Amino acid sequence: MKNLPPLPAERALRVISGRWKPMVLYHLLLGPQRLSELNRLMPAISQKVLIQQLREMEAHGIVSRTVFPQVPPRVDYEATPLGQSLRPVLLALCEWGRRHAAELDELDTLGDCGKLSLPA
Amino acid sequence: MKNLPPLPAERALRVISGRWKPMVLYHLLLGPQRLSELNRLMPAISQKVLIQQLREMEAHGIVSRTVFPQVPPRVDYEATPLGQSLRPVLLALCEWGRRHAAELDELDTLGDCGKLSLPA
Repeated sequence: MKNLPPLPAERALRVISGRWKPMVLYHLLLGPQRLSELNRLMPAISQKVLIQQLREMEAHGIVSRTVFPQVPPRVDYEATPLGQSLRPVLLALCEWGRRHAAELDELDTLGDCGKLSLPA
Repeated sequence: MKNLPPLPAERALRVISGRWKPMVLYHLLLGPQRLSELNRLMPAISQKVLIQQLREMEAHGIVSRTVFPQVPPRVDYEATPLGQSLRPVLLALCEWGRRHAAELDELDTLGDCGKLSLPA
């Protein structure tokens, strides 16, 4: 567990902030995913960076990793209950980002916050 | 306006992430504040760092700054409508941080997310 800032909002930001982390969490909130599937879902992110982000999320207790002893090895990632509890946070962030895309002078590309409001 | 990431949730994170920014925004969501008052409310933050964070928040369009031509000069900061619209995001972050303080193995110190759920 890394040192986290003392303020609640800053603690939440710390575990969710990081290039691609919101997107990784987004996909894991929809269900467990194999590493290869995450790679397929996010082709823009290199496997090295993806694994690094996943490890940080594991260290913060929001993602868990299961290795199945088979050949080739299968690795599954899923959101822990703590990670699942970030759903309203991610939804608020996603909706705000979408709603204010014009004000922020750029277009958004993800565009499906809606799935987050459904139960996993 | 700085370059913002294309994903909605990451865009929202970008404008709110930064040491003290959630706390600065928190105080500004409760009403306009003079610089001296923000200093008083957050004694742990140096004036230099505070001004730097406020400038970044101005650049992102979530804070506005008004200088009153008087001696000594008076500078007021307030949340813009875009900044005000971050209220549900900050509330979700704050509530999550508080609720999971134990799981995150640290105590929180702010502890009054509740005010954010009231209109300004």
